[in-house]
Amino acid sequence: MDNNHLKNRLDKMFFPQSIALIGASDVPGKWGNLILMSVLGGGYTGKIYPVNPKKDSILDIKTYPILSDIPDDIDLAIITIPARLVPDALKNCISKGIDSVVVISSGFKETGSEGAELEKEICRIAREGDLLFIGPNTMGIASAHHHFEAVPTPTAARPGGLAIISQSGNLGLQIMKWTAHKDIGLSIYAGTGNEALLKASDLVTYLGKLDEVKAIAMYIEGITNGREFREHAKIITKKKPIIALKTGRSKSGSKAAQSHTGSMAGSFATYSAMFRQTGIIQVRTPSELLNVAAAMTHLPVPKSNRVGIMTMGGGWGVITADECEDSNLELPALSQEIIKDLDNLLPDYWNRSNPIDVVGEGDPDLYLHVIEALAKWDEIDSVIALGIVGRSMFIEDMIECQEKIDGKIFSRELKLSILKDQIKTEQRIISGIGRIQKETGKPIPVVALTEGGLILTDTEYGGVISLSTPEEAVNILAHMARYGQYLSNSNI
Amino acid sequence: MDNNHLKNRLDKMFFPQSIALIGASDVPGKWGNLILMSVLGGGYTGKIYPVNPKKDSILDIKTYPILSDIPDDIDLAIITIPARLVPDALKNCISKGIDSVVVISSGFKETGSEGAELEKEICRIAREGDLLFIGPNTMGIASAHHHFEAVPTPTAARPGGLAIISQSGNLGLQIMKWTAHKDIGLSIYAGTGNEALLKASDLVTYLGKLDEVKAIAMYIEGITNGREFREHAKIITKKKPIIALKTGRSKSGSKAAQSHTGSMAGSFATYSAMFRQTGIIQVRTPSELLNVAAAMTHLPVPKSNRVGIMTMGGGWGVITADECEDSNLELPALSQEIIKDLDNLLPDYWNRSNPIDVVGEGDPDLYLHVIEALAKWDEIDSVIALGIVGRSMFIEDMIECQEKIDGKIFSRELKLSILKDQIKTEQRIISGIGRIQKETGKPIPVVALTEGGLILTDTEYGGVISLSTPEEAVNILAHMARYGQYLSNSNI
Repeated sequence: MDNNHLKNRLDKMFFPQSIALIGASDVPGKWGNLILMSVLGGGYTGKIYPVNPKKDSILDIKTYPILSDIPDDIDLAIITIPARLVPDALKNCISKGIDSVVVISSGFKETGSEGAELEKEICRIAREGDLLFIGPNTMGIASAHHHFEAVPTPTAARPGGLAIISQSGNLGLQIMKWTAHKDIGLSIYAGTGNEALLKASDLVTYLGKLDEVKAIAMYIEGITNGREFREHAKIITKKKPIIALKTGRSKSGSKAAQSHTGSMAGSFATYSAMFRQTGIIQVRTPSELLNVAAAMTHLPVPKSNRVGIMTMGGGWGVITADECEDSNLELPALSQEIIKDLDNLLPDYWNRSNPIDVVGEGDPDLYLHVIEALAKWDEIDSVIALGIVGRSMFIEDMIECQEKIDGKIFSRELKLSILKDQIKTEQRIISGIGRIQKETGKPIPVVALTEGGLILTDTEYGGVISLSTPEEAVNILAHMARYGQYLSNSNI
Repeated sequence: MDNNHLKNRLDKMFFPQSIALIGASDVPGKWGNLILMSVLGGGYTGKIYPVNPKKDSILDIKTYPILSDIPDDIDLAIITIPARLVPDALKNCISKGIDSVVVISSGFKETGSEGAELEKEICRIAREGDLLFIGPNTMGIASAHHHFEAVPTPTAARPGGLAIISQSGNLGLQIMKWTAHKDIGLSIYAGTGNEALLKASDLVTYLGKLDEVKAIAMYIEGITNGREFREHAKIITKKKPIIALKTGRSKSGSKAAQSHTGSMAGSFATYSAMFRQTGIIQVRTPSELLNVAAAMTHLPVPKSNRVGIMTMGGGWGVITADECEDSNLELPALSQEIIKDLDNLLPDYWNRSNPIDVVGEGDPDLYLHVIEALAKWDEIDSVIALGIVGRSMFIEDMIECQEKIDGKIFSRELKLSILKDQIKTEQRIISGIGRIQKETGKPIPVVALTEGGLILTDTEYGGVISLSTPEEAVNILAHMARYGQYLSNSNI
């Protein structure tokens, strides 16, 4: 299939104006019900045509006994009926002039040789009829800018720059959920299922050209057309980052991957080498995939691996310095200029080295001054700010404690106003970090004293990302720095 | 100081019947106020004597101008006054017959040579007067079974088995906070500050003998009396685990540690070797320290590194298998007996290998059957259960989605009852896992599809721990397995 042909069908798949749902159901928990609920609940504004021979209407939507009865043109069909009925359904699609289909139905290659035969059959039908389908055995797709979610449970993800391609349904949906819950901003989600026809690599090529996509996150068990993937990836990574989690690096993992999607995992080392050569960022775990992808869609990319650190507490600085060195991030010694500048602001005995320990000083303007001094310094290209936000947790605990001895010192109003002040102060710090990040073009991940991993805060200057542990911040910067260096080298 | 002498003073420090707070204040934010609020808010039931020459009462508590005016015996004095006044305060303590003191005040060795001189002076005074103090420059101590928290903000930690020793105040308090928020159960918290007199190693010896302590978590920048520490640790680790985070493994980290508490970090490799020889579990980051410590206080210790995995989704199984192999955990191939057993319960095409993929089957009794089959199998000593709890998140999202298309299918009541059912089902699964864990004596960490890291759930059979990522579960088991093997070897 040539590229324009492919693009046309994928545009219909991800941005359909009209959908037929073959197997629509009003039985809760059935795929034909889940998908319909998801499309409706996700806010889809196009036309929806449920197909079910036994119903006149489902969820108050007029339902058609057979596809050919639908009076309008259909951009996309979604199929949830049992596997053995899928061949006929595809033939009906072709007769109806539909050339873009999502096959949710399972019961194909993943279930054994009989299923594999059936999978071959639907491929043959599709090829003969010039029809493109994703799947089978996919848990769905989504397109947040189009408010189109055909997944088991909709996420109402905010439209944004992250595209996710996953060769595992469960895992991909989990990453999409996290993307939604953390408000990172989603463009496309595509669970590729068995990849009988449409491959993950085809999607990468497509997403590489889609303007709304700022970064592509991939969960990979095995890539079938490696040469093509490599060529396209090399071009794409110069414009937008691809972050890949390739599994099967262990014997057990590789075996498990094979029985999972039937894909040959291939040599892990070969993949790693290919990722390195094409500028693909390789991560190890799903949470790392999400963290790096979130940072890549919101923070500027650093030009080097040199980092400046500011910390509220000495211990956290030590931990972070250790993590940096393990991850090949350098901490240059402070310049005399910075030392002189900070001598005016910090206590006599401040440590005069990187990480800068602000020794518990409580002034937000001081924090921002130190962060700005670091960010403007030529010798480094990113800053980690440790422990200056998330402190309202302490105040909440203090208020709770004071409740127990109430009447003795503060009124409830005063306590809440203290908490409000702290939250305001932290917002001011975050906003200041956003400004410095934007002005200097250097990423400034924040390590907050909170739980729950990555938090994205929108400021008027763009997103600021905070993490609950220093190792997450360091990991993100290490990947970003490697990518930044790849970009510089490949532009020479 | 001989051991009984030391024990006597430390008993007074952590389980005082009466406290004098030298420097008590009614000014919010001052240490003398924070500590008093914390002691009160933490629920301390002993006697409290604030000392402040300018006040008759603070927080409605009768306040004494000088220590000698207090009519009763005092077990513990807590000092928050400026550094230069501390020598006289210690002399007053000695006159009053107080031999156990917490010196919160900073401005000693950590601020330069003048402070170092002052620190030497207070050590001399203490030694001459046979007085023991912790600090200076500590952010406090706590003893949860005694409901005694002398820290900047109280945590109301549930009394439990974890003791925390920290050479960083900020970091130690953060770990104590997490321990409280995650309801892990705290015994003792001790921030050792500059360790002028009382060393972390003295505390380890003391906590080793305290029955309520089930595990000891340590943040270490440098141990001063290594030989003694090694001897005591070797004895303690046979009865209860010590988990240590030693920083300064990098050049920058080691330099930062030195300027932070003035301790010589020493060779990191020397520490690592010492930890290995004495059975101390070495971790890398604060969150790892907390996770492993939590598991060690609630889960049984596995006898080997052989693991069985059950997963709801293939992808997660692959990821976890990879992580296991990286962490030296083995996944034995399933026995014919287990395969035969599960052939009756799982679809034809189930993968028949470890990890066991239950291919999306939704029956809680099936999950528990598979987990129990694994746990009872001789070839493995721990089980990871992936993706079977935390699914109520999906239902919440689904309900939210349904709200948007309300009236079309479910009533609000029905939706909430579905959610309630799911929560109930998950509680039943967790309780079942608790039972299997107790009956087999094998740890069964759960990986839930939730955010927020470690969650501890109490069941009638003991605690069950869930993590939000497989890498956390694998990391915990890897450390536990190594400790289990150390115990077997050292008992031969």
